[in-house]
Amino acid sequence: MKTRIGIMGYGNLGRGVEIAVNAAEDMVLTAVFTRRDPAGVKILSPDVPVVRADEAEKWADKIDVLIMCGGSATDLPEQTPKYAKLFNVVDSFDTHARIPEHFANVDSAAREGDRIAIISVGWDPGMFSLNRAYANAILPDGKDYTFWGKGISQGHSDAIRRIAGVKNAKQYTIPVESALEAVRAGENPELTTRQKHTRECFVVLEEGADAEAVEREIKTMPNYFSDYDTTVHFISEEELLRDHAGMAHGGFVFRTGKTGVNGEHSHVIEYSLKLDSNPEFTTSVMTAYARAAKRLFDEGQRGCKTVLDIAPAYLSDRSGEELRAQLL
Amino acid sequence: MKTRIGIMGYGNLGRGVEIAVNAAEDMVLTAVFTRRDPAGVKILSPDVPVVRADEAEKWADKIDVLIMCGGSATDLPEQTPKYAKLFNVVDSFDTHARIPEHFANVDSAAREGDRIAIISVGWDPGMFSLNRAYANAILPDGKDYTFWGKGISQGHSDAIRRIAGVKNAKQYTIPVESALEAVRAGENPELTTRQKHTRECFVVLEEGADAEAVEREIKTMPNYFSDYDTTVHFISEEELLRDHAGMAHGGFVFRTGKTGVNGEHSHVIEYSLKLDSNPEFTTSVMTAYARAAKRLFDEGQRGCKTVLDIAPAYLSDRSGEELRAQLL
Repeated sequence: MKTRIGIMGYGNLGRGVEIAVNAAEDMVLTAVFTRRDPAGVKILSPDVPVVRADEAEKWADKIDVLIMCGGSATDLPEQTPKYAKLFNVVDSFDTHARIPEHFANVDSAAREGDRIAIISVGWDPGMFSLNRAYANAILPDGKDYTFWGKGISQGHSDAIRRIAGVKNAKQYTIPVESALEAVRAGENPELTTRQKHTRECFVVLEEGADAEAVEREIKTMPNYFSDYDTTVHFISEEELLRDHAGMAHGGFVFRTGKTGVNGEHSHVIEYSLKLDSNPEFTTSVMTAYARAAKRLFDEGQRGCKTVLDIAPAYLSDRSGEELRAQLL
Repeated sequence: MKTRIGIMGYGNLGRGVEIAVNAAEDMVLTAVFTRRDPAGVKILSPDVPVVRADEAEKWADKIDVLIMCGGSATDLPEQTPKYAKLFNVVDSFDTHARIPEHFANVDSAAREGDRIAIISVGWDPGMFSLNRAYANAILPDGKDYTFWGKGISQGHSDAIRRIAGVKNAKQYTIPVESALEAVRAGENPELTTRQKHTRECFVVLEEGADAEAVEREIKTMPNYFSDYDTTVHFISEEELLRDHAGMAHGGFVFRTGKTGVNGEHSHVIEYSLKLDSNPEFTTSVMTAYARAAKRLFDEGQRGCKTVLDIAPAYLSDRSGEELRAQLL
C-alpha cells in the first residue's frame, strides 16, 4: 500500500513536496491543506482535493504523513506541535538556535497524540547536519567549517526591505573562494565572519529615496551586514524580477582533522551542494524522510526525531538486499 | 562504564584502531589478538596484553566489541563469521561484489551467537556508501559517479608484483580532472572507464629483467590495466621506499539529479575525502561504529548490520541534546 501524504501549506515548499511525492512510486498525495480560500489555490495534481486547514483533523485517518510546508519564523513553531497531535509530521524548521525548544514542544505533542514527528529536515539543518555529525564522530580531533551560497538569503533580503525608501531587494550570500581553498588544503585557518562570506545586495528604491543613505544603512546594519564586506547595487524593479528571481542555493560543509600517534596525519572531509532550486531540494529531502516517518511509525516509534536519529536505509524505497548489492 | 574494545590482527588497521580507541574517552583497549607469536608483536599501549588469536574465546566476557583488522581477500570471510559467534564485531570487508554473501554468513553466525555485527565499515564501502544511499533517496531521478584517488591501490600493485621480472611496485589510481569538472558542472557525462581514472605505476625490476616486456605486460593486463591510460616508471627500490611508502588516498562521490515539473532544475551533491592515511581514516570510522555496535547490542539488536542500518547519533559520544544543540 502506498504511503498517503498530506501537504500543509501551499507555497514554494508545498509545491516542491507535491512534485516529489508525485514522482515517488510508493507514495500518493491525498490532500493539500491551506489557510487561504481553497477555491483560489491551483495545484499541479488535478485529482487531489485542496482543503481548508481548519478541516485537517477530519483527515487524520486518511493520511499517513503530513508534511509541514510553512515558514520557521511564525508558522512551524505553532503548527508542527498542533498537527503532531493528530498526524505523523515532517517539518523543515531551520532556526538553529531554537531547535531544542521546538524539539521539546513537538516531542510532547507527538507523544500525546501517539505519533512520530521528524523536525528540521532539509539541507541545513538536514544534510549538512548529518555530515557534521558523521564527520565529528570519525574525526574527534578536528575543526568544522560551514559555508553557504552562492544563494539568496531570505532573512537578509527581508532586512533590506524593511529600510525606509526600499521598494524591493534581494541579497546573495557568497562564500569567499580563498577561504574555501584554505580549508580544502587542510590549512585549518581561523576565519572571521568577514573572511568566510561576502554579501551582495540588489536594491530597488522607492521614488525619491536617498540611495546613499540606504546604502549606508544596509552596510552598517548590526548582525546582518556590519561584519561583512557588502556590495550594494541599485537596479530597477524590472531588472530585479528578471535577473534575481531564481532560487538557486548551496553550500559546503568541511571537517578537517588529525589522526596518528602525534596527530601527524591530516584528513579533509568535504560535502557540498549546488542546487538550482532551494525549495525543491529541501522538499525532496522532506519527502524521503516522510517515507522514513511512516516506516518508523509502523515499527512503533513515537515522539520527535531528527535526521540524526534515523538510519539511512529508512529513506530509500529499496530493500536492504538491494541497497547492499547496489549502493554499499 | 567504558566500552571495552579488542583488536583482531595487528597490522596497519590494528594500529589505527589502537590509536583511535586510545583517543576516545568512552572506550578502553582491552586486548590485541594476533596469529603471530605475541612476544614478537610490539604495540603502542604498554599496559594492554597481546594475546594469541586462538585464545580469543576466553576473552568473550571481557570485551564489548572486537574490531576485525584482517584483509578482505582471505582473512575476513573466514574470521568475521567465526568471531561473530563469540563477540560483537565490526569489520571493513571491502570486496563489493561479495558483500551479499559475506552479509549472509555473518548474519547467521551473529544470530547463532546472539551478537551484533557491523560489516563493510570504512570509507568505500562505508562513508561513500552512506552518501550514495542518502543522495539516491533524495534525488531518485539522477546519476551516480564515484572516483577514487589519488591513492595507492593495493590490488593493482599486487597484480604488477606478480609479473615475472618485477621485484616491487606501487600503483596510483588517479581521477581525471576534466571528468570531475564535467560532473561537478552538472553536465551528466557518460564516462568510460578510461575517461574516469588513469593509472600510474612505479616499478622496480629484478636484475636483468626486460623493461619493455614488463611495461607491455602491465599495459595489456585485462581488467586491471588494459581499459586505462597507464603510465609506467621504472625506479630503484630505494626510490620506491623513499617516495612511494605513503598511505594517502581519497576520492569523490557525486550524485547529480533533476527536480521540477519537467525536470527543469539540476542539483549536484558532492562528497569527497582527502586522506593522509587510508588505514587510520578507515579505523577511525570503524571505531565510531564500534561505539554504535555496543549501544545497539545493549538495546537488544542482533545479527548483521551495515552503515546503512545505523542512525548517525549512535556513532557519537555526545547525547541527543548535545547533538541537536551543537551539530544539527
